[in-house]
Amino acid sequence: MTSPVPTREAGVAAPAGFRAAGVHAGIKASGRKDLALVVNDGPLDVAAGVFTTNKVKAAPVLWSQQVLTQRRVRAVVLNSGCANACTGPKGFQDTHATAEKVAEVLGCGAGEIAVCSTGLIGERIPMDALLPGIGTVHSALAATPAAGLDAATAVMTTDSVPKHAELRHASGWSVGGFAKGAGMCAPNMATMLSVVTTDAVVDAEVADAALRAAVGTTFNRLTVDSSTSTNDTLLLLASGASGVTPTPAEFTEVLTAVCLDLVRQLQADAEGVTKHVGVTVSGAASDADAEKVARAVADDPLVKTAFFGSDPNWGRIAMAVGKADAEVDPDRLDITLNGVKVCAGGVRGEDRSLADLSGKEITVLVELGIGTGAATVLSTDLSHAYVEENSAYSS
Amino acid sequence: MTSPVPTREAGVAAPAGFRAAGVHAGIKASGRKDLALVVNDGPLDVAAGVFTTNKVKAAPVLWSQQVLTQRRVRAVVLNSGCANACTGPKGFQDTHATAEKVAEVLGCGAGEIAVCSTGLIGERIPMDALLPGIGTVHSALAATPAAGLDAATAVMTTDSVPKHAELRHASGWSVGGFAKGAGMCAPNMATMLSVVTTDAVVDAEVADAALRAAVGTTFNRLTVDSSTSTNDTLLLLASGASGVTPTPAEFTEVLTAVCLDLVRQLQADAEGVTKHVGVTVSGAASDADAEKVARAVADDPLVKTAFFGSDPNWGRIAMAVGKADAEVDPDRLDITLNGVKVCAGGVRGEDRSLADLSGKEITVLVELGIGTGAATVLSTDLSHAYVEENSAYSS
Repeated sequence: MTSPVPTREAGVAAPAGFRAAGVHAGIKASGRKDLALVVNDGPLDVAAGVFTTNKVKAAPVLWSQQVLTQRRVRAVVLNSGCANACTGPKGFQDTHATAEKVAEVLGCGAGEIAVCSTGLIGERIPMDALLPGIGTVHSALAATPAAGLDAATAVMTTDSVPKHAELRHASGWSVGGFAKGAGMCAPNMATMLSVVTTDAVVDAEVADAALRAAVGTTFNRLTVDSSTSTNDTLLLLASGASGVTPTPAEFTEVLTAVCLDLVRQLQADAEGVTKHVGVTVSGAASDADAEKVARAVADDPLVKTAFFGSDPNWGRIAMAVGKADAEVDPDRLDITLNGVKVCAGGVRGEDRSLADLSGKEITVLVELGIGTGAATVLSTDLSHAYVEENSAYSS
Repeated sequence: MTSPVPTREAGVAAPAGFRAAGVHAGIKASGRKDLALVVNDGPLDVAAGVFTTNKVKAAPVLWSQQVLTQRRVRAVVLNSGCANACTGPKGFQDTHATAEKVAEVLGCGAGEIAVCSTGLIGERIPMDALLPGIGTVHSALAATPAAGLDAATAVMTTDSVPKHAELRHASGWSVGGFAKGAGMCAPNMATMLSVVTTDAVVDAEVADAALRAAVGTTFNRLTVDSSTSTNDTLLLLASGASGVTPTPAEFTEVLTAVCLDLVRQLQADAEGVTKHVGVTVSGAASDADAEKVARAVADDPLVKTAFFGSDPNWGRIAMAVGKADAEVDPDRLDITLNGVKVCAGGVRGEDRSLADLSGKEITVLVELGIGTGAATVLSTDLSHAYVEENSAYSS
């Protein structure tokens, strides 16, 4: 299989064995959808998950980490409008009660229910809205594209569009998923809420290894604002309903393609975004060094504001490269902006005015000339709209 | 001596034995002052210096680091309008020629002349303007407040006001200085160009130790945008002209007070600043951990945009605390904003609406409840004006 291209129809509901739904339960005052449910009807209930590395973890993260130690998940319930983070033992009780209620309607144990929340940090979740909503969302469960889209919609906060994708392998199995996240988005182990489903027959070891491999080169390589959220969660659920057992390599490839597609959708819908920036660093002493340099460039506010102004300001990129905690030789530094090598051997190369950054896509290539380490990080610009959204909206 | 309060009259020209000047040499197209000279007439010519930790260092940084190995400096020549960074061997030759020309007019060796530059990265310096300007600035040398102010003015780039300060000790010696820096400002060893003078009798060891101590708690604790410049340089010149030998402790105290005053001026004039933010972290496992947490909060774009919006959004602060590479116990976290403890023991404390952030000063206290480590970092908000200035101005 070469260059797998995901489509965007049913998301988590695409693989066989899964139903999904998204409804308005009353957590958001706006009347928009705020509660999603994804159910794995089997025959398998294999699961893998990755969670935020932030030391301040939301209650649903602490709960779901515990659930995932069993590597089995029957359903995931997700709400937007409240992060249930920094809410202490009472917030954890709210998450527990949510899982109990979902287990009750599905007829299983609470320990098989993962919980995800996103929204304002530091506020308790309105349980008088959430608990009745669970009956509503359960009644709405379906295996249709519309149901998959509803679930992807119900997890949105500052997102302007739902993000979902699925990819079907020629041998008869598929992977589907949704994700949300527009700000406070520098995933480190996973991004702010994503559920990926598959009907492939995979065991827990293969699921876990494939998920970590896919995340390492997709979700963990996106940075909108360097702000790693308290609620980041990515869950992979496998139903085995296709009856097909792919090789681990096949499964990882398809899973990675779906994750990358979801990440590109996150990047495209980032808060205030006007540019899609890809920073690739090569020639580093190690892959880890390459990633550090790529992140230093991708997160630097002077680089990001220059990109907002379509300014091929390579001096700021050289500054950001040099501030990274990585091996750098200033005299070997090449910087190429949208195909124009504006810095060669650490000094001015082709005329910067030849680099046209007026379009939406900006590709930055940094060649360090030291070793063979390489990494790519996806990012955005820093615009007036980002400042406006985050100074006016309390999240 | 308690609470020394620097004044703002003569800056580098305040201590005996120093003359200064600032003129327009033609490096800036705007016609504004762009060339400064500070001369130490002795009897001592003791000097200490700290420089950027950025691995991409400007030619004048490389030159001045070499000069400072002798711990003797007769004069410092500084230009704005061109950083002379990423200019390779030819840029270094330009710096060398500049030092030679200053040495010629002063009748000393080029190895006694420190050079500093600030402005656009990646462009060669217009030597046909700079070299004739050295005669002009030499002719303008004076020990007056006006001359000190001219020198502080000639190093400005996006700065809107010159920053200078001096402090006279009761026993008859003084410390004076100027600094520039408004963006690309996260000093690490020193900020973008500062010269501090003293007429105290100090030897090179005392000067160096006092400078490093002062910098550690002043310049190195300011972050405007996490962007450590390629040209950061802070030089201390001692003339000994007062004939008074302070104790090292006295000297360090006065020097620190002048440096802190300069840093507060940098903070107040940061690009797009509307808020002066002080982040103090206490109860950390170590001072180093406290500084990491303070920097994570001070540099986080979501925290900075919330402050721009006068929003007491402590959840974003909790997120930033948790993403820092430091020991954090979420259940012991207290956050106090302008005197209101909005987060206590990791959960909601007093009502956030009680914290009034509408004024210009925002004080953040983060208590980690783990150990005795503490640190304060000064920062700013992230405003529309920062985005405007840095997307429209190529520097």
